[in-house]
Amino acid sequence: YLDKKELLYEGKAKELYETDDPDILWVNYKNQATAGNGAKKETITGKGKLNNQITSVLFEKLKEKGINSHFIKQLSETEQLIQKVEMFSLEVVIRNVAAGSFSKRLGVEEGKQLSFPVLEFYLKEDALNDPILNDDHVRVLKLATDNEVLEIKKKAMEINQVLIELFEKMNIRLVDFKLEFGKTNDGSIVLADEISPDTCRLWDLDTNDRLDKDVFRKDLGDIIPLYQEVLNRLNQL
Amino acid sequence: YLDKKELLYEGKAKELYETDDPDILWVNYKNQATAGNGAKKETITGKGKLNNQITSVLFEKLKEKGINSHFIKQLSETEQLIQKVEMFSLEVVIRNVAAGSFSKRLGVEEGKQLSFPVLEFYLKEDALNDPILNDDHVRVLKLATDNEVLEIKKKAMEINQVLIELFEKMNIRLVDFKLEFGKTNDGSIVLADEISPDTCRLWDLDTNDRLDKDVFRKDLGDIIPLYQEVLNRLNQL
Ligand SMILES: Nc1ncnc2c1ncn2[C@@H]1O[C@H](COP(=O)(O)OP(=O)(O)O)[C@@H](O)[C@H]1O
Ligand SMILES: Nc1ncnc2c1ncn2[C@@H]1O[C@H](COP(=O)(O)OP(=O)(O)O)[C@@H](O)[C@H]1O
Ligand SMILES: [Mg+2]
Ligand SMILES: [Mg+2]
Repeated sequence: YLDKKELLYEGKAKELYETDDPDILWVNYKNQATAGNGAKKETITGKGKLNNQITSVLFEKLKEKGINSHFIKQLSETEQLIQKVEMFSLEVVIRNVAAGSFSKRLGVEEGKQLSFPVLEFYLKEDALNDPILNDDHVRVLKLATDNEVLEIKKKAMEINQVLIELFEKMNIRLVDFKLEFGKTNDGSIVLADEISPDTCRLWDLDTNDRLDKDVFRKDLGDIIPLYQEVLNRLNQL
Repeated sequence: YLDKKELLYEGKAKELYETDDPDILWVNYKNQATAGNGAKKETITGKGKLNNQITSVLFEKLKEKGINSHFIKQLSETEQLIQKVEMFSLEVVIRNVAAGSFSKRLGVEEGKQLSFPVLEFYLKEDALNDPILNDDHVRVLKLATDNEVLEIKKKAMEINQVLIELFEKMNIRLVDFKLEFGKTNDGSIVLADEISPDTCRLWDLDTNDRLDKDVFRKDLGDIIPLYQEVLNRLNQL
């Protein structure tokens, strides 16, 4: 019943369209892959389809566990309907295992299990290269109130617990991942954006094989079979 | 009565010597100036003397306000006796006004008054270029316990209030500064290291003239008259 209207925003991985309903957006997952804040950019046929499907399944699974997201329903291979929210200009990263910038910045060996899940905030601002923030920065830049910060942290930790278990059943180690949150009209905070191999580090539990965007970032091969493998294992749950 | 024994550690700005008393160290303030984690390095005659005197006066003033430090007494123009402590591998930065890396990283105009003092932790590790940390990083890297973090933050904020007032009386704006803390034998946390124009951003309240190491960092002129000016104003209090 809803029609796709004007393009509201085109990001690196998705296009957001308005609909007849001001509270609902129409997303299209693109085939574009980027790394290093857009420094590396390629079209990878089939990526949009896989990320849309993986995100849709994950948001459904989270809903079953009582965790609300912006997800309304999958419309087609690359499209979803989502609730429009006012995004926090924050990227929320949870790390269970040292990897990537955490390892490099802090000198912790890649693959080292962390003694508890580490949460990081980053300012979502391409022009500044998404700098890392501490809680004082979040407050002084007025990116979220103290209560919102507490709620975002709590939700992120809950999501981590659900996802760790879920991926473990798929024989996958959830190394780290990035979340984005938004605020609905009534002020409640919901998970938004996507959860996909673009936004998670996923390592096969037996082989340590990478099943995520690091393979693209480091030019290690074709990501499509890996993302397909993640979707296959997800569909077998 | 105490003798200077073996060199324990030579840093970028100071040399630490052992004494007959295992709990007491003998510091010599050097004339070396460094910036960009040692990338720029110069000998500046007279700097050691000025920083030793400024630090000694500031630690005395803090003591009068009930804030303990490692400072025991000034021995000579460039030397102090200090309490030996087990240092936290942390640099604690307090910012009252946006400047330097804060402005650059977060896109906040230099000189903007912050709505509250912002505290930042950095890992004191030259080989990693002193990366910024959030509280989870401090915990997961076991750099301090949760209680120690709370106490360090509280002390740093108290020191900030004392220093803001003190510098205001000297017609100086305390923009930001770096502290280091250590733990004594009995587990109590004390302020250590130094507080000098090497470790603070100090701007003249009327002219905004820089009276600190930024003048060296940015090759803007001779720092000795500026450090001398800070000491003169301090001695007039
Ligand atoms: N429910 C939502 N409502 C409004 N905006 C959203 C929602 N979910 C995600 N977004 C935003 O949609 C934009 C498009 O996603 P993406 O292509 O990943 O963009 P970007 O390159 O900015 O990360 C992002 O800025 C993201 O924050
Ligand atoms: N009271 C103290 N006890 C032990 N070490 C201290 C004390 N105060 C400062 N230090 C340490 O002394 C070293 C020498 O100072 P500095 O020359 O500034 O060295 P750096 O180049 O490592 O910053 C620093 O590592 C500092 O942390
Ligand atoms: Mg995105
Ligand atoms: Mg030093």
